[in-house]
Amino acid sequence: MVTRTVDLRSDTVTRPTEAMRAAMATAEVDDDVLGADPTAVRLESEVAMIMGKEAGLFVPSGTMGNLISVLVHCDIRGSEVILGDNSHIHIYENGGISTIGGVHPRPVKNNDDGTMDINSIEAAIRDPRGELVYPTTRLICLENSHANTGGRCLSVEYTDKVGDLAKKHGLKLHIDGARIFNASVALGIPVNRLVQAADSVSVCLSKGLGAPVGSVIVGSKSFISKARRLRKTLGGGMRQLGFICAAAFVALNENVAKLEGDHKKAKMLAEGLNQIKGLRVDVAAVETNIIFFDIVEETKITAEKLYKNLEEHGVLVMPEGPYRMRIVLHHQISSSDVQYTLSCFQQAFNGVQEENGYHV
Amino acid sequence: MVTRTVDLRSDTVTRPTEAMRAAMATAEVDDDVLGADPTAVRLESEVAMIMGKEAGLFVPSGTMGNLISVLVHCDIRGSEVILGDNSHIHIYENGGISTIGGVHPRPVKNNDDGTMDINSIEAAIRDPRGELVYPTTRLICLENSHANTGGRCLSVEYTDKVGDLAKKHGLKLHIDGARIFNASVALGIPVNRLVQAADSVSVCLSKGLGAPVGSVIVGSKSFISKARRLRKTLGGGMRQLGFICAAAFVALNENVAKLEGDHKKAKMLAEGLNQIKGLRVDVAAVETNIIFFDIVEETKITAEKLYKNLEEHGVLVMPEGPYRMRIVLHHQISSSDVQYTLSCFQQAFNGVQEENGYHV
Amino acid sequence: MVTRTVDLRSDTVTRPTEAMRAAMATAEVDDDVLGADPTAVRLESEVAMIMGKEAGLFVPSGTMGNLISVLVHCDIRGSEVILGDNSHIHIYENGGISTIGGVHPRPVKNNDDGTMDINSIEAAIRDPRGELVYPTTRLICLENSHANTGGRCLSVEYTDKVGDLAKKHGLKLHIDGARIFNASVALGIPVNRLVQAADSVSVCLSKGLGAPVGSVIVGSKSFISKARRLRKTLGGGMRQLGFICAAAFVALNENVAKLEGDHKKAKMLAEGLNQIKGLRVDVAAVETNIIFFDIVEETKITAEKLYKNLEEHGVLVMPEGPYRMRIVLHHQISSSDVQYTLSCFQQAFNGVQEENGYHV
Amino acid sequence: MVTRTVDLRSDTVTRPTEAMRAAMATAEVDDDVLGADPTAVRLESEVAMIMGKEAGLFVPSGTMGNLISVLVHCDIRGSEVILGDNSHIHIYENGGISTIGGVHPRPVKNNDDGTMDINSIEAAIRDPRGELVYPTTRLICLENSHANTGGRCLSVEYTDKVGDLAKKHGLKLHIDGARIFNASVALGIPVNRLVQAADSVSVCLSKGLGAPVGSVIVGSKSFISKARRLRKTLGGGMRQLGFICAAAFVALNENVAKLEGDHKKAKMLAEGLNQIKGLRVDVAAVETNIIFFDIVEETKITAEKLYKNLEEHGVLVMPEGPYRMRIVLHHQISSSDVQYTLSCFQQAFNGVQEENGYHV
Repeated sequence: MVTRTVDLRSDTVTRPTEAMRAAMATAEVDDDVLGADPTAVRLESEVAMIMGKEAGLFVPSGTMGNLISVLVHCDIRGSEVILGDNSHIHIYENGGISTIGGVHPRPVKNNDDGTMDINSIEAAIRDPRGELVYPTTRLICLENSHANTGGRCLSVEYTDKVGDLAKKHGLKLHIDGARIFNASVALGIPVNRLVQAADSVSVCLSKGLGAPVGSVIVGSKSFISKARRLRKTLGGGMRQLGFICAAAFVALNENVAKLEGDHKKAKMLAEGLNQIKGLRVDVAAVETNIIFFDIVEETKITAEKLYKNLEEHGVLVMPEGPYRMRIVLHHQISSSDVQYTLSCFQQAFNGVQEENGYHV
Repeated sequence: MVTRTVDLRSDTVTRPTEAMRAAMATAEVDDDVLGADPTAVRLESEVAMIMGKEAGLFVPSGTMGNLISVLVHCDIRGSEVILGDNSHIHIYENGGISTIGGVHPRPVKNNDDGTMDINSIEAAIRDPRGELVYPTTRLICLENSHANTGGRCLSVEYTDKVGDLAKKHGLKLHIDGARIFNASVALGIPVNRLVQAADSVSVCLSKGLGAPVGSVIVGSKSFISKARRLRKTLGGGMRQLGFICAAAFVALNENVAKLEGDHKKAKMLAEGLNQIKGLRVDVAAVETNIIFFDIVEETKITAEKLYKNLEEHGVLVMPEGPYRMRIVLHHQISSSDVQYTLSCFQQAFNGVQEENGYHV
Repeated sequence: MVTRTVDLRSDTVTRPTEAMRAAMATAEVDDDVLGADPTAVRLESEVAMIMGKEAGLFVPSGTMGNLISVLVHCDIRGSEVILGDNSHIHIYENGGISTIGGVHPRPVKNNDDGTMDINSIEAAIRDPRGELVYPTTRLICLENSHANTGGRCLSVEYTDKVGDLAKKHGLKLHIDGARIFNASVALGIPVNRLVQAADSVSVCLSKGLGAPVGSVIVGSKSFISKARRLRKTLGGGMRQLGFICAAAFVALNENVAKLEGDHKKAKMLAEGLNQIKGLRVDVAAVETNIIFFDIVEETKITAEKLYKNLEEHGVLVMPEGPYRMRIVLHHQISSSDVQYTLSCFQQAFNGVQEENGYHV
Repeated sequence: MVTRTVDLRSDTVTRPTEAMRAAMATAEVDDDVLGADPTAVRLESEVAMIMGKEAGLFVPSGTMGNLISVLVHCDIRGSEVILGDNSHIHIYENGGISTIGGVHPRPVKNNDDGTMDINSIEAAIRDPRGELVYPTTRLICLENSHANTGGRCLSVEYTDKVGDLAKKHGLKLHIDGARIFNASVALGIPVNRLVQAADSVSVCLSKGLGAPVGSVIVGSKSFISKARRLRKTLGGGMRQLGFICAAAFVALNENVAKLEGDHKKAKMLAEGLNQIKGLRVDVAAVETNIIFFDIVEETKITAEKLYKNLEEHGVLVMPEGPYRMRIVLHHQISSSDVQYTLSCFQQAFNGVQEENGYHV
């Protein structure tokens, strides 16, 4: 019988706090489609201000935030977007920018640190003179922190350089900021400075920040005005939206400060895992709250086997490949949970090892 | 100074009740994208059962409910949908089925009662032998009650006939049931019977039922499985969804019973308005909670003028044309509000009349 | 055994003349994708000049001409086009503007003469203030002559009025001119005057004019520049295009003058058919080269039966409904063919009549 | 004054032969949209037979051939295609599969020989269990010979392996065979064997084979039937198509045999260029009729300068980058043209060199 659950699959699994529930119970609300919900308006303004942009728009998910942003910047038929070949938009969003939006992606190789080489980006920009056979490049997308390379942070210098490149070629820059606060905290750079070069940012409130639902996209007033319309087209316009915005407000106020702790716990956990024989973790690469690690293949312990073994002890992790796993920390994982997790890993590992004749 | 507000613009403007707030504060929730939120699951099953379908899916809006339904039924490139030329999907949803979904609409004339002639529907179905130049008809959409003809109800006999026609030609039938409970109550037909012929129904919880946010689409398990994926593509997947589902549950339990009262108040209001000289209301056509009415043009009182005059007294209505207006009743409009509204109309009317030399 | 074939199914069935073959054999050609084919350039300029527009572009079909035109005018996501509910684009082009182009059609009722009421068009234009729920109207399409109402012509006055309406609302006007020369000849109005109000026209060379392949779209230089790119996207860019353009040149030079004769023969044939008991033709409605006619249902002679009977004598016509047929005249139908056709109809009719006990 | 023109920009610039003109002048034709053009039917059957597939369809261009093929295989919304990141479809076709077809591309790195690693292809196939966030992989595309890597040939073993992989995962395999005959000749493998593993092939007749216009796509009867409909949607249906098919027939009969000579001349030219100091050519990589080569940057002779210098002597080549150029051989380039080209290169080079102080 499982007596304890440590859910490390994602930072989306956080449970709303009492403060969030209380905020919801007393939220001031109105019809946000006919007019404007006051709590939504307040949240949108607040996030816009924090990010240093003119305006904001609440959307039900990060996926919709990215989809709307890409489609608004690429509102003319025949648009192409340059984005990382390992980015969330390219890999995990159902290909929506093409299958729903008709936007052509031009993926560029993501390095291990989540960047794309500046030269490679520039080489991917279409020469306007080739317009008879080329789509028109209209947008570059970055992701910060970059989930699929283990939550690596893009520096402000890198971001600025991509921004300069975009301006030079008349392109827009969108940042998928699902975990932009993690990057800001890890880099020690104010979040508005970090996204200064961007024309739009999608900020998730329901990942590390722990809000129950939603993201906010920010940008210029004109961008947000088009985004509002597209949100309605997609069916993302909601009526008494203030309830979920009230909870998101609490997340924003209370949980940004907790991210630093999440990163420390991630580091601690990564180091601990790396000391288990049969596991390989690039500890230096753990910059924020995400850990990717590999199982040594000779152990013959597949990610699936390990996953099931751990699950029996209430530890939930995410298999990412035959011998690869992902762990994500969040504010509801305590130091004690980290210790418990490490001991479960050690045990689970020992157990299965013996079967396979691989000696620790 | 306005001392009282009577908001008759839509039944989407209802304020959540204390019971809803309480339900939200204690809702059991989980990550509905990674696994399943228990409250969402319960609501989806409940609505499916009530509608007599296999499965349900919560979506953030009626627009998304319709968009997903049409796109799932028309998942092959080159699909055409037959729908009313005055239907919500065709008029008020940004043309999303085409602009986002690439589905070709084939509008058929909506009669004053919200029906389309069965013969006209059949004539609009494409002959498969003409496939070289014709798109493939895959879906018929009905809307019950039919908003833009004043909340008129489609009878179960009519709906069944359209269903038979759809089956005969191998087509699917979707019902936009934004106000299907209003129709059910007005017709005295159980709602599951009323939609028996449909392959999918989009049921709105945030209109007459007064939930803060959301709709549920229902259909076969296979339909819902495809719909769930498309919801993710559109960005309608939400994390701790249970909060808004908990409120929607209250709406479902408490407010269906109130719809009959809304219809009575609508009738009363319609009769009252019709007695004001200078207004014309087809009282017999007021079958549910919506009233459309016309201002006699000779009065020279435009809908805009009248709107502003009423607004000063806190009565909010919706202009629908130069001399046409719409009123929608809901459970937070009392009989006293109806009386107050009538007297404001009378006064407002008298006032403006004198200016124009049109004598009451 | 059939000794003679009179193909009246469409004016697309014409056989290329010896002059066309000769022109093809000696055509000057080059790679029209890499640079420009001289014969194509000459044809495009010539048609543009005739139509009174800045520039032209050869396309492989009228369908591509209309598709490109609509998509260029509606190049921003969320566009709507107003067009006749009985127009070729809406009915016979596979719904391509939506299924390929994501453009939302807003069909307006076509009158029997091919027009749409000006008031109905204006009412269908979306109010920009409703942009949250409305797509953006960007284009009006007319069709002249209007095939599906029997080749009826839109007058220059009507076309100008629609043009004025378009300008007033900042919309573009496209004319599907598959048979614009027929309209010009029938109305006695120079073709450039007839399309003066249009921003683009699709002119077919392979219908009444008898070219083997192709249409030319005309409009402003900027329109044609966008159209050229979209033609490449669709795969309509062709290499040594000059061959088919050379034949089209002959069609343009030789066959416009023959259209008047086609119209006369159509009138003659219509009158003859109308005298056959059991057939009903609105002779006055036959303005150009197309005849629609109905079989009296009491005869129990379906269009299909009649079609087969006539086919045995080499006369090919087009069934359009259970008791409705279409005939199209063209320059390779002689007066003698018309007489032969009438006698076949009379015979065919007599024959089948006797079976059914319907007395002529 | 230019006295001679040697156009090496592409094999699309060939001039139709007298035999082609003669064939056009006497071609048997009919309306290919209403029924079937006999010459088109014959050509389609012939190409299908040669390629070892059930059926064929003529299309106006290779771009349309690829677009239709991808869209037919990916006819369900939410499809993804795996293709080379340097393939013609991904780079040179306006992004049409996304911008027109809503298909999501998943590019995989093209090696220098035009292949993609089999492991990389397999890794890019989406796990169906991740369907909530993943599009559905439905198609793999190869290109043989592979233009952008210099006309390199994919072996039959490689092609078969990719075919096996596709089958294993329930995917389709399309081959962009714009220059499939070049590959077949260079490899000494019958063309039907070379494409045996493919579900569809797009075969260009207007490149190396020298037809004035067109490609033929081949595949199963069911594939071609869907392709025919989509061709109409795109506007690629043409009327008296037989003219251009007649010329294409001549190309097919006469010019396949000439490809071997083109390859030899390409080799000879490549070797000659490589001996010019300041130019670098990977002679071993010249497998068919395409040569890519680089200018040594120290020469400070940009591709643009060199292009202009050569153009003055009537030699046309294609700049591909600041210091990179492309040359394509075809049957209308003689050995004497090759010699002339080499001497122009040498001269042009010498001239510019002296300016830059780079000594040969």
